[in-house]
Amino acid sequence: MKIVAKRLPLYTGGPDIVVLGKEHATELDLHPMDRVYVTNPDDQSKSLTAYLHFWHEANPVLGVFGNTFDKLGIEDGETVSISPAPKPNSIAHIIDKMNRMQLSEAQIFEIVRDIVDNKLTDLEIASFITSIYMGGTTLDEATSLSKAIAETGDVLKFDSEIVADKHCSGSVPGNRTTPIVVSVIAALGITIPKSSSRAITSPAGTADVMEVFCKVAFNRDEIKKIVAKTNGCIIWGGGLRIAPADSKIIKVRKPLKADPEGLLMSSILSKKYAMGATHIILDIPLGLETRYKNIGEARLLERETVLIANKLGMKASVVITDGDEPIGSGIGPILEAIDVLKVLQNDDDAPQDLREKALLVGGRLLELIGLDKFDYEGSGADLMSSVLSSGSAYEKFKQIIEAQEGDPEVTVEQLKKRLSEHTFDIVADSSGMIYDIQNPIVAKVARLSGAPKNPGCGIYFHHKFGGNVSKGDVLATVYCGNPDKMQRTKRTLESNKMVFIK
Amino acid sequence: MKIVAKRLPLYTGGPDIVVLGKEHATELDLHPMDRVYVTNPDDQSKSLTAYLHFWHEANPVLGVFGNTFDKLGIEDGETVSISPAPKPNSIAHIIDKMNRMQLSEAQIFEIVRDIVDNKLTDLEIASFITSIYMGGTTLDEATSLSKAIAETGDVLKFDSEIVADKHCSGSVPGNRTTPIVVSVIAALGITIPKSSSRAITSPAGTADVMEVFCKVAFNRDEIKKIVAKTNGCIIWGGGLRIAPADSKIIKVRKPLKADPEGLLMSSILSKKYAMGATHIILDIPLGLETRYKNIGEARLLERETVLIANKLGMKASVVITDGDEPIGSGIGPILEAIDVLKVLQNDDDAPQDLREKALLVGGRLLELIGLDKFDYEGSGADLMSSVLSSGSAYEKFKQIIEAQEGDPEVTVEQLKKRLSEHTFDIVADSSGMIYDIQNPIVAKVARLSGAPKNPGCGIYFHHKFGGNVSKGDVLATVYCGNPDKMQRTKRTLESNKMVFIK
Repeated sequence: MKIVAKRLPLYTGGPDIVVLGKEHATELDLHPMDRVYVTNPDDQSKSLTAYLHFWHEANPVLGVFGNTFDKLGIEDGETVSISPAPKPNSIAHIIDKMNRMQLSEAQIFEIVRDIVDNKLTDLEIASFITSIYMGGTTLDEATSLSKAIAETGDVLKFDSEIVADKHCSGSVPGNRTTPIVVSVIAALGITIPKSSSRAITSPAGTADVMEVFCKVAFNRDEIKKIVAKTNGCIIWGGGLRIAPADSKIIKVRKPLKADPEGLLMSSILSKKYAMGATHIILDIPLGLETRYKNIGEARLLERETVLIANKLGMKASVVITDGDEPIGSGIGPILEAIDVLKVLQNDDDAPQDLREKALLVGGRLLELIGLDKFDYEGSGADLMSSVLSSGSAYEKFKQIIEAQEGDPEVTVEQLKKRLSEHTFDIVADSSGMIYDIQNPIVAKVARLSGAPKNPGCGIYFHHKFGGNVSKGDVLATVYCGNPDKMQRTKRTLESNKMVFIK
Repeated sequence: MKIVAKRLPLYTGGPDIVVLGKEHATELDLHPMDRVYVTNPDDQSKSLTAYLHFWHEANPVLGVFGNTFDKLGIEDGETVSISPAPKPNSIAHIIDKMNRMQLSEAQIFEIVRDIVDNKLTDLEIASFITSIYMGGTTLDEATSLSKAIAETGDVLKFDSEIVADKHCSGSVPGNRTTPIVVSVIAALGITIPKSSSRAITSPAGTADVMEVFCKVAFNRDEIKKIVAKTNGCIIWGGGLRIAPADSKIIKVRKPLKADPEGLLMSSILSKKYAMGATHIILDIPLGLETRYKNIGEARLLERETVLIANKLGMKASVVITDGDEPIGSGIGPILEAIDVLKVLQNDDDAPQDLREKALLVGGRLLELIGLDKFDYEGSGADLMSSVLSSGSAYEKFKQIIEAQEGDPEVTVEQLKKRLSEHTFDIVADSSGMIYDIQNPIVAKVARLSGAPKNPGCGIYFHHKFGGNVSKGDVLATVYCGNPDKMQRTKRTLESNKMVFIK
């Protein structure tokens, strides 16, 4: 059926939606929540499958949600074609998995491609995830899944024998090792094109922190140019079409809070594979509030990850770290950028826990690559440390900032001036040792203060885990976006204790 | 947050949706596809959980989809309260089931209640269904599920020791035994308040056929009055709040085409339980195109259904029937109504297969109730036959029509006048015996012709399975809604053979 399309001032942030009059729906034998195939007649490649909503009264036009309209690439008032969407074949494969059959690589590719092409609905994706959760995945299935998630998006290739990468399973505020590790490894002549994420529920992602220094959104060609010049980059992965199925799967599995291991590994490994990585290090923080709570779980993940990475032609290693306390002194984009800069500049005031964690993670990555490549006889961490101390990592970081169109000469003092002026202090209510800083409260307070949207917001810790304080000492300073946010942040701290002293 | 609500001229036929400006969403830390709790300040009981869409530009009001607006019971421009919806506890129970734990009655009630209250999204319901499909259900779980689905809606009670009911697992066009069985059983003095469905994907549901004679939408009190007067009724279940969770679950499991047995039995039994049934007969047609394809599957369903029904305090019996051919001569609301009337009137021209099937199903129901109650020594089918032949079943049917506000004196001739005038014949292309009539094609053609929306449309078979025909004989007449539909129906028949002769 041909019908005039009209852009609606609505969007969903996810599913595609079109709105049809009941009379047209009846003609096409369509019911509420059915799927319709919408075609741009001038550009068939921009066709898509959308959910159907209805006009309350007779209406001759097709209402198109803003997010859907943009994908169709049409003009307001242009005529499009609609028809009932055919049932995708991949539903049969999902049912196979529900029936505990092993899926072939071809079947898995068909499912993943239909996810990317919006042909499967959230509920079908949820069934797929649940079937993997309950039925498990074989190593072959997990490998196919990683490959499919990567290859249904862009895959980058670099002209280097070794392409290094790192990943952290997250949930530790301030854990900003990436800019440090990338700078050292790139300074050693190794290609390390690092794509990072922005914060979703945390106070800052690596991309948010890097954006304090320079641009982070680049396309494939630009990234290749940057890396050709500097060996490394730290960019925002969302600007690329890297593993587009992954974000769609995450949107569905997040509300379930049930992450099948097979999917989790595929999520990580597909992105590394798509970035052309050959050697990858995984940082798995263990803690009461992190994703992995005990060493057994982490070891299992390690074993499987290494095996699947090998099947994908990559070498992988895992480092299990302490995830119970924040890393570094600052939480929030600019505050974390300051920490990073201090470590790279070998500042006396640099947070030692952040430096040490970077040495550990980067050191293991260097050992995986092979220290003989660098004619070095100490440990990986020692090599990391010597490159950091020599200042060549800082030089490399400045090159990367410059290549990413930032100001390489930016100083800690200049960054401090960009912090928010609405601050208040958190004061010790007793004397003793700090024996716990609650990560979830840290993240909540830093977000309430305004981070990451306002990069100058967040928390600066004057004292950290293990430190001795006296009653009345300033434990931390909170930088808030405005007086309103300051009030709300203070109220939250009244009912949520963040720092524990005994 | 308090915000002015504005009704949008949109509806979904399912999920509740509200539309918020980005600025308000940020303030409440809400993201696309998050859920919001919306409260009518004058009537807290009308609060609901809705999905969030966004305005494309800054907009101070809350857009409310029509279906959601009506549930809230507010006026256009009234102020409502919105807040981020808390995660329902039942998600934890769903994850328990994904982890293969047995769920308690309380956990199952919580899940079902959250489905009814729209607190679970489609994707969470899909995970629940998948977890039941893969993990199975114990008898206790299936019993709790049936009870929960019934008791989260209306449950009817009748002042009779015996309340009879019947169910058919469907997919056989023309299988309209219900009005016949209900009339006989009610004539025997047994309470039989039958709720039926309208067609969704078939050419006619029992409610559509009954609507040819009289009204079918009644509320609880009206049904009680009708049944008090006549012992029986044949009404549309959709007019009641019977097992409201069931239709929501069906909407999610239908696209998956994967119906866990546990859910299927709960779907059937919950509705009987809610109608106050004590004795139920299940008609399971076996066939190549019906839900059950072999006797083993059907026997398993029988065993489990009887056990669960007993746990729910009901007696149940199953009759397995032939589901490969249509039943009766007419397909479509009025054509099926004519068949029913002919059987009840003991017309010489009445379709004998419909009569015999009604005797079989109704007879088994009478045997389950106990033939001693009727001082009868033959079989249940014989008793059915004698009540039919005596004319007292037809008298009872007329009473029911009258109680349901129809014309009890309506004749077959009057009904024939209401058939559509746009007809064409399907003619035998060879001589021989009819050895197959393809049910899926029958249903497709009858729907294309205009049934059930236009009750006068459908197919009338002049010859049926096993009949001998000569080339050129009229096999069937198709009644179409208009010349357009006639063309489309003819085209479909060109590529889809309906009647096979050899």
